[in-house]
Amino acid sequence: MSMNLIAELTAIVGDKGILTGEDVSQRQDGWIGAPACSAQAIVRPADTAELSAVMKLCYEQDQTIVVHGGLTGLVNGARTTSNDIVISLERMRNIVEIDAQNRTMTVQSGVNLQTVQEKAEDEGLYYPVDLGARGTATIGGTIATNAGGNRVLRYGMTRDSILGLEAVLADGTIISSMSKVLKNNTGYNLPHLFIGAEGTLGIVTQAVLRLRAKPLGGATALVAVEDFESLSKLLNLAESGLGGGLSSFEVMWHSFYDLVTGTERHRAPIPAQSAYYVIIETQGNSNEQEQERLEMLLGDALEQELISDAVLTQSDSEREKIWAIRDDVEALFELAPIHGFDVSLPISAMESYVEKLQAGLDARWPDNRLIVFGHLGDGNLHVIVTQVPASDKKGVEELVYGGLNGLGGSISAEHGIGLDKKPYLQNSRSPAEIALMKQIKQTMDPKGLLNPGKVLS
Amino acid sequence: MSMNLIAELTAIVGDKGILTGEDVSQRQDGWIGAPACSAQAIVRPADTAELSAVMKLCYEQDQTIVVHGGLTGLVNGARTTSNDIVISLERMRNIVEIDAQNRTMTVQSGVNLQTVQEKAEDEGLYYPVDLGARGTATIGGTIATNAGGNRVLRYGMTRDSILGLEAVLADGTIISSMSKVLKNNTGYNLPHLFIGAEGTLGIVTQAVLRLRAKPLGGATALVAVEDFESLSKLLNLAESGLGGGLSSFEVMWHSFYDLVTGTERHRAPIPAQSAYYVIIETQGNSNEQEQERLEMLLGDALEQELISDAVLTQSDSEREKIWAIRDDVEALFELAPIHGFDVSLPISAMESYVEKLQAGLDARWPDNRLIVFGHLGDGNLHVIVTQVPASDKKGVEELVYGGLNGLGGSISAEHGIGLDKKPYLQNSRSPAEIALMKQIKQTMDPKGLLNPGKVLS
Ligand SMILES: Cc1cc2nc3c(=O)[nH]c(=O)nc-3n(C[C@H](O)[C@H](O)[C@H](O)COP(=O)(O)OP(=O)(O)OC[C@H]3O[C@@H](n4cnc5c(N)ncnc54)[C@H](O)[C@@H]3O)c2cc1C
Ligand SMILES: Cc1cc2nc3c(=O)[nH]c(=O)nc-3n(C[C@H](O)[C@H](O)[C@H](O)COP(=O)(O)OP(=O)(O)OC[C@H]3O[C@@H](n4cnc5c(N)ncnc54)[C@H](O)[C@@H]3O)c2cc1C
Repeated sequence: MSMNLIAELTAIVGDKGILTGEDVSQRQDGWIGAPACSAQAIVRPADTAELSAVMKLCYEQDQTIVVHGGLTGLVNGARTTSNDIVISLERMRNIVEIDAQNRTMTVQSGVNLQTVQEKAEDEGLYYPVDLGARGTATIGGTIATNAGGNRVLRYGMTRDSILGLEAVLADGTIISSMSKVLKNNTGYNLPHLFIGAEGTLGIVTQAVLRLRAKPLGGATALVAVEDFESLSKLLNLAESGLGGGLSSFEVMWHSFYDLVTGTERHRAPIPAQSAYYVIIETQGNSNEQEQERLEMLLGDALEQELISDAVLTQSDSEREKIWAIRDDVEALFELAPIHGFDVSLPISAMESYVEKLQAGLDARWPDNRLIVFGHLGDGNLHVIVTQVPASDKKGVEELVYGGLNGLGGSISAEHGIGLDKKPYLQNSRSPAEIALMKQIKQTMDPKGLLNPGKVLS
Repeated sequence: MSMNLIAELTAIVGDKGILTGEDVSQRQDGWIGAPACSAQAIVRPADTAELSAVMKLCYEQDQTIVVHGGLTGLVNGARTTSNDIVISLERMRNIVEIDAQNRTMTVQSGVNLQTVQEKAEDEGLYYPVDLGARGTATIGGTIATNAGGNRVLRYGMTRDSILGLEAVLADGTIISSMSKVLKNNTGYNLPHLFIGAEGTLGIVTQAVLRLRAKPLGGATALVAVEDFESLSKLLNLAESGLGGGLSSFEVMWHSFYDLVTGTERHRAPIPAQSAYYVIIETQGNSNEQEQERLEMLLGDALEQELISDAVLTQSDSEREKIWAIRDDVEALFELAPIHGFDVSLPISAMESYVEKLQAGLDARWPDNRLIVFGHLGDGNLHVIVTQVPASDKKGVEELVYGGLNGLGGSISAEHGIGLDKKPYLQNSRSPAEIALMKQIKQTMDPKGLLNPGKVLS
């Protein structure tokens, strides 16, 4: 990259809009543990028009670009090389409009998730996408990765909360599809092209978010289940028994519950002797009503012998204690080095998948420890393998991903492909699908300037 | 088209797989009122492999293709010329698999919607997409048009019920994205490209449908509302007050209710003297519970003076009588010639949109009659204009569509573009969006063989 380009970029975004030298290398290229940013410059446009001018210039000069949102992505999707410049959305954080009557919020994509959630609640409304990194992850990043999180069962992925979207293409063209309505069958749905594309097809600059009614109450239970069949029947019972109210159905395998409740940080609300533990949460009109509905459900489940034990929480602090068990990543980190995965598969295939995986691990690494938990209702399992050397990464990946073949699931439920999962993309997508993806990439980014080397080779 | 091609097609699909001559011209090119099919042949492949071979052959010979599903589309999307051949999915009607545990159904795309609904209910499950043409519309057609219908508010459009999809491209390539899971963040989401593309990017051959828990009960009310602001507040109250249960919020303007209840077919459950009438329906665990929740809601709404009258139905037959008012298309047809529209716009803009439209119509056609009703909760209005000559179609279209400019809504909420709405596509989509759509079309169908002249010029 020429000094000339830096000067031209500065002419567009002003001095405040560009960082170089140490200001760049002091930043990281991703979440905790990522290396320093090695890009030539970080460009921070103030608005879509500036960004468009920047992109046009880069296009003319064949300059590659990597977008940085909150850098909480978990697949090394935001990594740079010294050939790249970074576009950071950090100065594009406006809440453009909150339309309470239509339940939409229009935002620039640099705003973070928590701000959106809070602004919605201020209006008595609700933005349902939620994940641990809420304070840092940007709306643009959650769109680019189609983030999932804690309430997918009820509200869907980020994709399901986006009504409209504005993006800038590689050549600077602004694609404004800022629809504010649920229903818009007028030609190809362009927003869905950019959602989940991890910054390889365009830069998301604004979005119209769909807000929901704020749940006025809820109820939470922890239950113990002795076999997998009961687990899956319990999910069906909860889906129908709680009407539309079921918002979480989080399962911890014995291995996970045992580990976490074995630390000093927690007390086991139910003894750690069952095969599975499930957090069931429902959202609705009032705490009393939801409590009642959940109690009825647990009664039915006991009667049908689907559960062997249950605790219905009676206060926020009891609720938080139960979630703290599920959310205790620290307990996992203590087992480092760990091999962590985020896969999806049909619920009917889960039991045998986990059994086969355990057998495969045992055959090669007799000391291994396999820890499983996840959003069962979404078909999403987090699989953690420890007591296997870090250098055997590839062997573990092959077992975890290989076992998914032919099940109709996926090697990445939530986190995307980025750099990390690129070698395994063909485990989830056929050669014809990959060829079509490459055609689309070629059409929309003919010079290959957007997030080069990510997702597709 | 050469006789040679017919012979080659017959070699692929067999005698049963192809219709020519009168067998073609006796069929129609669309819903009631459409002209006779003018294609050279109707090819009826038995499976995806046959269809792929047909497409490959047509690609080599530059043969244009129009897909026929149930022919219930409402925008002349399935119209043929004598240059085309038709691909009909009528022999591809297998239910490939019902997986009750994962709540998925895998079907060939020629199966009709009602069959899918019934097969799901047989398993105690539920396919929520529903529309009047359920007995004839095919799953492939509902996918190609991203059909909406009666329960979008709660379950979304067809798009939201598709987990996986198989399609055949113009050159015969089979794209199999038959995911069975909710979460699959592995590269570009190809199913969303084909959903709503009206057969211009590929032919949908199979799909994995997402089934839901079957609602075990419900409740229905008809209420009267005196002003638009109360209407919109009532919607918010219903959304939060009924938890996830609200499944319909259908509004009839006075003009509609007055017309329909004025016929001999109906008795007005509430006198026809209010500004708006709303059907509120909720689905949940049991009739009693839902009845109770809805009763509470109506109580709150009365107290807040949002409604002036209400009837809570006490039986299926009372419920059916109320829906029969909403569904009485016959009453509209009696006013022929009519100009009918299906638009979407933010709820906050609806009142002034309708007022301006009325003023515009009055200025030009003093005798006009404007009748409005729709899925208010989805931002979707059906607008019917009568007592304006059929020859003034263009003038009416310009008023109806012109009024939408700048509102973030759309000229086609549910029905798509086809041939009929193509002249107005630019009212809802910018030149940059249309250019990008054309690029995608060009990439995926470089010879322009798929549904030529539909959606895009
Ligand atoms: C503690 C923690 C918990 C998490 N929990 C979950 C979870 O439950 N579910 C889940 O799905 N994920 C989870 N994640 C992953 C992460 O939070 C999400 O992927 C998040 O959506 C990324 O947002 P970001 O702004 O940090 O994006 P970044 O990390 O900055 O970028 C992610 C990718 O998107 C691209 N990108 C960013 N912004 C844009 C834009 N405006 N336009 C185009 N491309 C862009 C980047 O180039 C990169 O490829 C978690 C992460 C952490 C650290
Ligand atoms: C009485 C009535 C009520 C209706 N109510 C509603 C409603 O409430 N909501 C709503 O959204 N619509 C409604 N519609 C419209 C219509 O039912 C839907 O558009 C339906 O989804 C079309 O399905 P079909 O099989 O009849 O498709 P067709 O009419 O055969 O085809 C429609 C379009 O899709 C293409 N196509 C069909 N099958 C395929 C395939 N397998 N692959 C690729 N392209 C294909 C065709 O080429 C055409 O362009 C209604 C129609 C009627 C007649």
